Amino acid sequence: MTIITQVEARDIRFPTSRQLDGSDAMNEAPDYSAAYVILHTDQSDDLTGHGLTFTIGRGNDICVAAINAMASRLEGRHLEDITANMGQFWREMTSGDSQLRWLGPEKGVIHLAASAMINAVWDLWAKREGKPIWKLLVDMSPEQLVSCLDFRFVTDALTPQEAIAMLKHMAPGKEAREAEMRANGYPAYTTSAGWLGYDEDKVRRLCREALDDGWEHFKQKVGGNLEEDRRRAAIIRDEIGEQRTLMMDANQVWDVDETIANMRDLAEFNPHWIEEPTSPDDILGHAEIRNRLFDSGIGVATGEHCHNRVMFKQFMQAGAIDYCQLDAARLGGLNEVIMVLLLAAKFDIPVCPHGGGVGLCEYTQHVSMFDYIAVSGSLEGRLLEYVDHLHDHFIDPVRIRRGHYLLPEAPGYSITMKAASLDDHTYPTGREWQ
Amino acid sequence: MTIITQVEARDIRFPTSRQLDGSDAMNEAPDYSAAYVILHTDQSDDLTGHGLTFTIGRGNDICVAAINAMASRLEGRHLEDITANMGQFWREMTSGDSQLRWLGPEKGVIHLAASAMINAVWDLWAKREGKPIWKLLVDMSPEQLVSCLDFRFVTDALTPQEAIAMLKHMAPGKEAREAEMRANGYPAYTTSAGWLGYDEDKVRRLCREALDDGWEHFKQKVGGNLEEDRRRAAIIRDEIGEQRTLMMDANQVWDVDETIANMRDLAEFNPHWIEEPTSPDDILGHAEIRNRLFDSGIGVATGEHCHNRVMFKQFMQAGAIDYCQLDAARLGGLNEVIMVLLLAAKFDIPVCPHGGGVGLCEYTQHVSMFDYIAVSGSLEGRLLEYVDHLHDHFIDPVRIRRGHYLLPEAPGYSITMKAASLDDHTYPTGREWQ
Repeated sequence: MTIITQVEARDIRFPTSRQLDGSDAMNEAPDYSAAYVILHTDQSDDLTGHGLTFTIGRGNDICVAAINAMASRLEGRHLEDITANMGQFWREMTSGDSQLRWLGPEKGVIHLAASAMINAVWDLWAKREGKPIWKLLVDMSPEQLVSCLDFRFVTDALTPQEAIAMLKHMAPGKEAREAEMRANGYPAYTTSAGWLGYDEDKVRRLCREALDDGWEHFKQKVGGNLEEDRRRAAIIRDEIGEQRTLMMDANQVWDVDETIANMRDLAEFNPHWIEEPTSPDDILGHAEIRNRLFDSGIGVATGEHCHNRVMFKQFMQAGAIDYCQLDAARLGGLNEVIMVLLLAAKFDIPVCPHGGGVGLCEYTQHVSMFDYIAVSGSLEGRLLEYVDHLHDHFIDPVRIRRGHYLLPEAPGYSITMKAASLDDHTYPTGREWQ
Repeated sequence: MTIITQVEARDIRFPTSRQLDGSDAMNEAPDYSAAYVILHTDQSDDLTGHGLTFTIGRGNDICVAAINAMASRLEGRHLEDITANMGQFWREMTSGDSQLRWLGPEKGVIHLAASAMINAVWDLWAKREGKPIWKLLVDMSPEQLVSCLDFRFVTDALTPQEAIAMLKHMAPGKEAREAEMRANGYPAYTTSAGWLGYDEDKVRRLCREALDDGWEHFKQKVGGNLEEDRRRAAIIRDEIGEQRTLMMDANQVWDVDETIANMRDLAEFNPHWIEEPTSPDDILGHAEIRNRLFDSGIGVATGEHCHNRVMFKQFMQAGAIDYCQLDAARLGGLNEVIMVLLLAAKFDIPVCPHGGGVGLCEYTQHVSMFDYIAVSGSLEGRLLEYVDHLHDHFIDPVRIRRGHYLLPEAPGYSITMKAASLDDHTYPTGREWQ
């Protein structure tokens, strides 16, 4: 038995705003940050579970405070008691304390904090089992996997019985798909060339470097000034050619009609999708955009700010999105991520998770590998996002080869940061902030 | 000119769980709490602005931390600069700091904190003008009022021009409706008899007392055990008769199909509405419930956990609700509340705000009085919620007569608590918590 002896929460921030890395139309100067959780245990081999939720700077301390407010729900518990009933554990963490639930429910700071803690439990479990997360999931029976989920508020779209049937249906090809992932990796796109705060020469140079590295799919930020969006789109198209993929991402700055007008204008650059055109809460607005842009061939993508399974369920029921961009640190941890994968499979919507920030690529490689091997069984329309920042701070960072993520092999969720990185970037006392 | 010199945030909690006041199927033992804001000024007459957001206990400190994180956005500013451009101020408070916005956006802890601060500014403004909030709003021209709002993400449903036209259309009868409110008050219903944690004798006794006090409309909590729900409904119907109104409130505990089944079972008690049957995020789920319960005559009500105007816009666009129960402390302050009133008027949906907690009745009397006098011009289907807890702690508490709220007359938003109440209920150092 493994006892969780202590929940340690740390405020970790990287000063990315100094180079305008990650700048977009809504988020002009983010400092990529993590409310970081370490679950200490009584095990002699220094076994610890790690998890984080991603923020962009100020307010990271508020997430840390929320984690501390929930720490007593984990401290003193046996890992094996938790993992024996993961679905019930998830319900407890997100709804078990009705006083804390009031602050969401299942959204905002309190859900972000729960996400970090729940993911830390999964990391601990996978390390205890000696498997990477994707493999821990792949090796579960359909019944085991479904027992990890909470179907509250989704049974009108997906029942446990349907989920089990879907997983059983996909079971036969699992070994072949696992071998394929090990051989080829998972296809990805890069966002690293197209940040809004980069000047045009830098965009051109980064496109060339990315092409040299084998990238086939590129994303640019839009939504600042339409003329500048056009100019940067022209540069990227000029560099990558007509055959490669260009996505656009407006980071929520437009209204519905504004989106239609602007994307009709940008359609000549043949964007594959428009991402986050408007409020992340606007399911019906996205549906309207999708309908009205249908003839232009531009898909609609959203999800990095979609806060829970109930919202994703509706985005799918309403026919509002072509691509589901779930965020592994904003949804309530891996349990809710798996639920969204199942919903997406049922509605036949490709999942292209939100990457970037700090640690999101490390998380989502597991999510998409698992999705391919055991849930959707398809790569059609699927691409993992890649952003080339901050990977050096992780013990088991993502590995990219010619535009593909390689299968992670180390036990856990790949989210454990180096001790020195944690110390240097602790806010406000770490060396980077002095 | 009035300078806001200091933002003081206080963690105020009332031990209501000791008597199970406020208990329901989701929230079994709330301690009604307020993250309470005092805006100190440089004025010699001790002018201060007060605002609060409502929570139910644990986590109230997290809201206080969020208020402190935003305090610098108000400190040192001139009230008159803010009120000259209230719409822009609202955008600044909710989206101006993109790092903090990431924690929502416009939802959860960060939006609750913004709500308290924004309402404190309105309170300060109204006190400076020597008017109660409803009157400050009623006396504005349509153009002034609309300039207080941020139409981002709602223009597909309502434009500023339409809003001005609607307000102009209602202008002629304003004086008569104001006189009517002063004479008759605003009709209300009581939730005080029907808490889930009260035993049956207490429910019966409280119904009789409420009838003696002139109440015509009653709400009970459901969603615990169906047989107990039926028994309590029978008791209430037995006491209030067939002609008076009985509402039911499930506080989010059911799924969609479960709601249909349970409400068909409870239909024999002729409930006026089912409130919060399922997840507060489930717009399409509420629409499904409303459609399938249509033949039973049971209306669908929700809104106390609806976090912003974008969600309410969709509840209305989707035909998902019969009654809009906006919460004056969960929406981003009065600006967003007014936007929802305008949307509701456009979609012809009655607004019956969420009362109870601590201070919500004090807030919402202003909201509904303003709605009647200047926005909807109608009382049809409208009832203010009343809960008889904690009013003694306010300097200008609500006044109820024969099931009606009387028009508040003191300057401000009626949300200023007595200094002794604040001190006694400060958590964890106040006298009540020792």
